[in-house]
Amino acid sequence: MSETQQEIDQWMQAAIDEANQARIIGEVPIGAVIVKDGQIIGRGHNIREHAQDATFHAEILAIQEACMVEKSWRLEDTAIYVTLEPCPMCAGAIINSRIPKVYFGASDPKAGVTGTLMNLLTDKRFNHQAEVVGGVREAECASLLQTFFRKIRENRRKKKKMAGN
Amino acid sequence: MSETQQEIDQWMQAAIDEANQARIIGEVPIGAVIVKDGQIIGRGHNIREHAQDATFHAEILAIQEACMVEKSWRLEDTAIYVTLEPCPMCAGAIINSRIPKVYFGASDPKAGVTGTLMNLLTDKRFNHQAEVVGGVREAECASLLQTFFRKIRENRRKKKKMAGN
Repeated sequence: MSETQQEIDQWMQAAIDEANQARIIGEVPIGAVIVKDGQIIGRGHNIREHAQDATFHAEILAIQEACMVEKSWRLEDTAIYVTLEPCPMCAGAIINSRIPKVYFGASDPKAGVTGTLMNLLTDKRFNHQAEVVGGVREAECASLLQTFFRKIRENRRKKKKMAGN
Repeated sequence: MSETQQEIDQWMQAAIDEANQARIIGEVPIGAVIVKDGQIIGRGHNIREHAQDATFHAEILAIQEACMVEKSWRLEDTAIYVTLEPCPMCAGAIINSRIPKVYFGASDPKAGVTGTLMNLLTDKRFNHQAEVVGGVREAECASLLQTFFRKIRENRRKKKKMAGN
């Protein structure tokens, strides 16, 4: 399985669309899709706050949907596209579901473990490795997050100012 | 929060009981419970094969239940008891749910990342660390797994022998 740059951009756009779904409901905008044979078989966006569930990251929800669609916990011959570099939980879920290829947008200096803090997906001690391509539509993926957190900070400042009046 | 040895043994027994639930239905016998204020608030056992879902490990299911019970993704002031050392996905879920204390039974030389291959839960680069105590009722937890895999190997040998006749 080898994707063209156009396909990669297209699937990352679908992940960005998912991230926007999170943004609209006030969640940290992170989205993911899983693609097999030119079709999306799993989608997810972060809904941690709405669900009040620490495991409801975009990748986990996309993997769960893809497993359901495939009727298999093995997601071989698929690729996952995610707007932010996976955290340990999501990188672990990628290992556990045997996804062979990972495209991510923005790097995560705080929790990214597919290249930034470490790379769990190329560690030969685990029983599965995945190829990782970072920086796909990086500026757009990062901008989504930056805008979201800037707005939160602005709202906090406004509230403080109003409380001070 | 500081548990007595009797309490630790008691909660690990509850995790072993969960592992036995997995064993009875033919799943790799791994179980987990989450305890808060002397009460179990989340239980789980591995059901990967029945659910055909790569994320359905004991710890994930226990964390999801505990989040539901607590109506919060933050599982502060809790402890998780699990019969096998957590994999990257489950260690990551423990970080994400802010569980401060982890007791595990048997070490996992293949995927254990809370002391064996690495320790994600004491890595100061993540925004949460947990105290880890391994080897709790280790012999019983390991024996459950060893017996399970020995039976699988025996069954395979029997089938081969029958096919040869």
